Amino acid sequence: MTGIIRLPARDIPLPASMSPEAQALFAAIADSPARGGMPEGNDPVAWKRAIAEAEESVLPMLRPLDALPGFARETISAGGVTTFVATPEGAPGDRVYLDIHGGGLVMLAGEATRLMGLMMASRVGVDTYSPDYRMPPDHPYPAALDDCLTVYRHLLDRYPPERIVVGGASAGGNLAAALALRARDEGLPLPAGLVLLTPELDLTESGDSFITLRGIDVMLRSPLMPANRLYAAGEDLAQPYLSPLFGDFAKGFPPTLLQAGTRDLFLSNVVRMHRALLKAGVPVEMHIFEGMPHGGFGGAPEDRDLAETVGRFVAECFRREA
Amino acid sequence: MTGIIRLPARDIPLPASMSPEAQALFAAIADSPARGGMPEGNDPVAWKRAIAEAEESVLPMLRPLDALPGFARETISAGGVTTFVATPEGAPGDRVYLDIHGGGLVMLAGEATRLMGLMMASRVGVDTYSPDYRMPPDHPYPAALDDCLTVYRHLLDRYPPERIVVGGASAGGNLAAALALRARDEGLPLPAGLVLLTPELDLTESGDSFITLRGIDVMLRSPLMPANRLYAAGEDLAQPYLSPLFGDFAKGFPPTLLQAGTRDLFLSNVVRMHRALLKAGVPVEMHIFEGMPHGGFGGAPEDRDLAETVGRFVAECFRREA
Repeated sequence: MTGIIRLPARDIPLPASMSPEAQALFAAIADSPARGGMPEGNDPVAWKRAIAEAEESVLPMLRPLDALPGFARETISAGGVTTFVATPEGAPGDRVYLDIHGGGLVMLAGEATRLMGLMMASRVGVDTYSPDYRMPPDHPYPAALDDCLTVYRHLLDRYPPERIVVGGASAGGNLAAALALRARDEGLPLPAGLVLLTPELDLTESGDSFITLRGIDVMLRSPLMPANRLYAAGEDLAQPYLSPLFGDFAKGFPPTLLQAGTRDLFLSNVVRMHRALLKAGVPVEMHIFEGMPHGGFGGAPEDRDLAETVGRFVAECFRREA
Repeated sequence: MTGIIRLPARDIPLPASMSPEAQALFAAIADSPARGGMPEGNDPVAWKRAIAEAEESVLPMLRPLDALPGFARETISAGGVTTFVATPEGAPGDRVYLDIHGGGLVMLAGEATRLMGLMMASRVGVDTYSPDYRMPPDHPYPAALDDCLTVYRHLLDRYPPERIVVGGASAGGNLAAALALRARDEGLPLPAGLVLLTPELDLTESGDSFITLRGIDVMLRSPLMPANRLYAAGEDLAQPYLSPLFGDFAKGFPPTLLQAGTRDLFLSNVVRMHRALLKAGVPVEMHIFEGMPHGGFGGAPEDRDLAETVGRFVAECFRREA
C-alpha cells in the first residue's frame, strides 16, 4: 500500500470560472515575485527584521482603509491590552464584534490591526474591537491568546454574551476558535457566534490541502511551520489551544461560520472543522469559494458575496440569541 | 496578465488525515492500473464494447449488495420505463425516494442500476425507485431525462410531491438536478428535496477543479468529455438541462444537499452550485469530505458519515413538508 500519486510537471491556468475582477487580482498575485519568507530558526533579530519587512510591504495596501467614512475611532486599554475600537455611525451600540487580526501569529500588529479592524467594522456594522495582542518573537504562546481572552472578559463586563460575536481570518481564526475553547474551559459564557475565515486551525498542518494545494495557493507561498514553532515555543502544536481543530466541541462551542477557497491551503482545515462541528451538534455553515486562495479576492464580486454572507450570519447570531 | 502557475513534478502522498479504512481503499484505487478509457468519437460499436467492458469490471464489486437483507424487490414498468423498486421492511409506504443512477450518462444500466438502488434504499429507509433510463449510444439526450421525468410523473400520480425526494450520484446528480429544472418549467410540482452526490452538474467542465485536481482524483482518471458529447448529440453542453449548474434557480428549486471531496474532480461543480443556490434563496447544505475522490470511500467511516448525513437530510425533507 502506497497510494502515492506521481504528478508530472504542469501549468495551471487562471480559473475562467471566477469573476473577471477576481481573475485580474489573482493574476497580479500569481505573477508577482515571491516575497522573502520567514527565518527558519528562532533568532529574534532575524524574525523582527523579516516581520518589519513583511509589514512594510502590506501596509501600503491597507492604508486606503483609513479613508473609510462613517466611523468613530478610538484606541483604548481593555484590561491592559491596547485595543482599537471602531464605532460605525448609527450602530445600535448594544452589540459588539471582537475582531482578531491575522498575520501568521507573528505579524500585522499595530497600524495594520487598526486598519483591518475598520474594514471588519464596515462589514458587520456594529462596534468592533480589534486587540493589538502580543506576539513572538518577544511574546510566544500563550501571550496572544491571553490578550484576546482579556479583551473578551472586558467585553463580557459591558455586553451580554448573546450580544458578542468573535471572529478572525487566518491566524485570527486560530485565536478566535482557541478563545472559544478556553472561555468554555474557564467557565466563561460563550459568544453568540464565531466567524472563522480561511482559518489556521491546525498548526501541525496535517490536512491534505497543505500538500495538494502547495504551489497552487498563490497567497501562502512560504512555509508557515517556522512561525508556528516560534509561536508555540515548545508547546505541543496539536493541543487544542494551539490547533483548535483538535478540540472537543461536544462540550460546547458557539454557532460558527467557516470559509475557505478551492485554492486555499487551509481548505482541509475548514472541511475537517465543519465535519467535527456537525458531529458535535454545533450549528455551523461552510462557504467555499471557487478558485479562491487564502485571503480572498479583495474587492471582487466574490469578496462582496463573502462580506454579505458574514454580515448576514453576524446579524442572525444577534437575532437568534436576543 | 497570465496568472499561470508552473508546477514542478511532484509526489502526492496518501492523506494521513483520513480514516485508516479510507486510506487503505484510496491506496488500492491509486495503485491499480488505469482502466481503458472511453472512445473519442461516436462509433456506436466501439462505445458499446467500452461500456460493456467497464460494466463487467464494476459489477463484481456491486454484486454483494444483492445480499442486503430486509427488502421487497420488484421490477415494474413506470409509464413504460423499466424501474427497479426496493421496499424496505417496515418502511412507512407513504413516501418515496427516486434514485437516479450514475455512470457518466452512458453506463451502469440494468443490473448495476438495480444493485445500486438497493444500497440507496438501505440508506434512506423508504421505498426507492431506480429507473433503468435509456442511454447513448442508441439513445442520446433527451432520452435519459425524458425517462426520469416519466418515472417522476408516475410517482406524482401516487404520492404527494412533499413525499418525494429525488437524488443521484455523479451523472445521476446531473439528471436529478435537470429533472427538477424541467419539472418546474413544465409546471409540475417540485419534490420535497434533492440529493446531489459528487454531481456532474457541468458538462462543459468549466470549473477550476477539473484542472487543479486532474490526476489527483484517482477515481476519474479518463476524460469525460467524449461521453458528454456523445450524450449531448449536438445540443449545447451549456444549456441547463445538460448542465444544471447554469440554471436559473430563483424561479424555484427544491431544498438541496450537495456533497463532494477535496480530491474530487467535481469539487468546483459543488461549490459553484452551493453559491448559486444560496444566491437564489434555495435552502441548501454542502458537505465536503477530506481527501475524498469522486465516488467516495465505500465502507469507510467517512462513507457512513455521508450515509447518515443523507438519511438525516431526506428525513428532514419529509418532515418539513408533512
